[in-house]
Amino acid sequence: MTTDRTEAFSDGVFAIAATLLILNVHLPSFDQGDVGRQLLNSWPAYLTYAISFLQIGIVWVNHHHLLELIGRVDRGLMFLNLLLLVFIGFVPFPTGLVALAFQAGRYESLACIAYGVLMAAMGAAFLMIWAYLARHSDLLKHAFSDGQIRQFMLRTIAGSAAYLTSAAISIVSPAASLAGFVLIALYYVRPVAELEAEAATR
Amino acid sequence: MTTDRTEAFSDGVFAIAATLLILNVHLPSFDQGDVGRQLLNSWPAYLTYAISFLQIGIVWVNHHHLLELIGRVDRGLMFLNLLLLVFIGFVPFPTGLVALAFQAGRYESLACIAYGVLMAAMGAAFLMIWAYLARHSDLLKHAFSDGQIRQFMLRTIAGSAAYLTSAAISIVSPAASLAGFVLIALYYVRPVAELEAEAATR
Amino acid sequence: MTTDRTEAFSDGVFAIAATLLILNVHLPSFDQGDVGRQLLNSWPAYLTYAISFLQIGIVWVNHHHLLELIGRVDRGLMFLNLLLLVFIGFVPFPTGLVALAFQAGRYESLACIAYGVLMAAMGAAFLMIWAYLARHSDLLKHAFSDGQIRQFMLRTIAGSAAYLTSAAISIVSPAASLAGFVLIALYYVRPVAELEAEAATR
Amino acid sequence: MTTDRTEAFSDGVFAIAATLLILNVHLPSFDQGDVGRQLLNSWPAYLTYAISFLQIGIVWVNHHHLLELIGRVDRGLMFLNLLLLVFIGFVPFPTGLVALAFQAGRYESLACIAYGVLMAAMGAAFLMIWAYLARHSDLLKHAFSDGQIRQFMLRTIAGSAAYLTSAAISIVSPAASLAGFVLIALYYVRPVAELEAEAATR
Repeated sequence: MTTDRTEAFSDGVFAIAATLLILNVHLPSFDQGDVGRQLLNSWPAYLTYAISFLQIGIVWVNHHHLLELIGRVDRGLMFLNLLLLVFIGFVPFPTGLVALAFQAGRYESLACIAYGVLMAAMGAAFLMIWAYLARHSDLLKHAFSDGQIRQFMLRTIAGSAAYLTSAAISIVSPAASLAGFVLIALYYVRPVAELEAEAATR
Repeated sequence: MTTDRTEAFSDGVFAIAATLLILNVHLPSFDQGDVGRQLLNSWPAYLTYAISFLQIGIVWVNHHHLLELIGRVDRGLMFLNLLLLVFIGFVPFPTGLVALAFQAGRYESLACIAYGVLMAAMGAAFLMIWAYLARHSDLLKHAFSDGQIRQFMLRTIAGSAAYLTSAAISIVSPAASLAGFVLIALYYVRPVAELEAEAATR
Repeated sequence: MTTDRTEAFSDGVFAIAATLLILNVHLPSFDQGDVGRQLLNSWPAYLTYAISFLQIGIVWVNHHHLLELIGRVDRGLMFLNLLLLVFIGFVPFPTGLVALAFQAGRYESLACIAYGVLMAAMGAAFLMIWAYLARHSDLLKHAFSDGQIRQFMLRTIAGSAAYLTSAAISIVSPAASLAGFVLIALYYVRPVAELEAEAATR
Repeated sequence: MTTDRTEAFSDGVFAIAATLLILNVHLPSFDQGDVGRQLLNSWPAYLTYAISFLQIGIVWVNHHHLLELIGRVDRGLMFLNLLLLVFIGFVPFPTGLVALAFQAGRYESLACIAYGVLMAAMGAAFLMIWAYLARHSDLLKHAFSDGQIRQFMLRTIAGSAAYLTSAAISIVSPAASLAGFVLIALYYVRPVAELEAEAATR
């Protein structure tokens, strides 16, 4: 199987998961007092919507860069890709949890940990894909060097570690944890360009 | 009509049905006691989300392998394909039912039967497609041998039978039925590779 | 603008509108008595889901046949196509209304009329597209004969008239109206094949 | 990275955001009195559904025209495009707010301002994209003249200004503000054709 179809299905899941995030941003109740205040108090819903949308967008870009390196998809790779998509499709849940927790002012740490764990799980799925490709180089357009594999895997591990660290920080300060998630999302716009540069020089 | 357009519409339905499954995973109520416990008690929602997502992913792969064998689509085939998509789009309903039943600890058997019957209905739609193709070989890129048709149909019947058996087991043990659905989903990652191997040797 | 992009956006709207229909099929309440009976009483939701999914699928096929005849898209055509998509995206609303009305056993006629009017409005949008194409034949790959235009428009008018008639019947018998919608959906699988035959003989 | 992938993901987000708008059109409650009256009173939901759907459709067309001018996508452009998509995916929220406010007959001005600000934010995202392209002409297929850049930016600023003005009018008359949004949406079908004409004469 070529990568085209895997791309079409994956693209759909990425775009839908991102757009469904809006369902976590609840409309104010017009029967319950001050609508303006309700709208202001919903800031965690707006912020988590934006973070998760960016995050899905960035993972989507990385996913595409990955597929560009792959010549064909076998059963194992298809299964690992489905696993990654299962996590992508799950993003709206911890996103909604973080929004609710910060709006309620309770359980913020629990919510941040759930969010960080899902992001780390995505990293784990990418890691399994890299490991699988390292052992099945016939699926690649150009075999990786050992250095490249190590670099890809280290970058993925670093991302997951950053998410878990940011999640753990929530035990001390939920606000700092949230800020951490924002910073990681913004930082991860970066590796894309690097991967691009590498692809260009190869 | 070529298969391209059937693919585009079908791909959309598959990806959306899979991603909509997350709407069955309800956020905990922050007004009702222990949010941590609520999150743990929602395990059936997480598990059924993952099973159904994988299942839709696998049917999607099989659907694509099927379309690869087809040269053009006529009115009858289009109608049978729409029937299959009607079932795919319906997956979130019994998935939500199984999640609710296992969370409530009631009606698990009824929910498992509803789930198994829908999965068997998908098998039936595939079976009708194979039967239709057997009688309209002009739609195929390469005519099937009688042995191939028989093999495709047997495999599809076996899958539906496995789902119905697993559903029936729920009368004795709902947990065993759920485990059966997981096993079938994992097993069905397999035929894809076989189909691929066959396609390669042809 | 070529038709490719109009197709991509339209395909997305068709597939999403069809798959969102499942949100009108509500899960039973496990706190309110007999779940089995609730599931049986939801038959109008299952039936209207299936009818509307098929209907959207059929309109999608006709939409594609239409785009196949068109060489390029101008501002007017784009606007009329958007109008058609506005109606397609609206299908879940009257579909849910019909399901609720038949489940409640009240306002069935009102719901059937809303459903029929939306379907007729889709026909009107198609009609406006045909009329626009008749006056802007430079957008077509091959100019239509007057006979063809008349035939396309008559077929579209006939479909809308059938929906309005079926809707009106609901005043006497809501069940007959619902049966009419099923019959029209099944009948309209047909013109596709005819259009195909025409395209082949041209 | 070529523009193909940016297009696929963007198209998905546009189509899904438009189709999700239907979730703001709530079905009447069959337990609360006159369903017919409830349906009539929901006119703001129907109207805002149609306006926002058209609006997303028009932005989608402009987005495509933009991508046609671009040869390749770098990290900065990808980020700005994601920002635009974050706003597109957010459209259902203020749309639902306007519908609720006009149905409740309260907070209409607040809702109109929220709607206008989001539309202006989309314009700002487009503006940032134009400004980025002006400084990175290597991403373009054909370098813009200074006149063209100025024209594109002026048109985008004019659109945002029109939305903010229409939003501000809501303080005096919410109905006039809503009418303004309809007019802007209808007017903005126009620039597309002009852009097309320009592209043709180049």
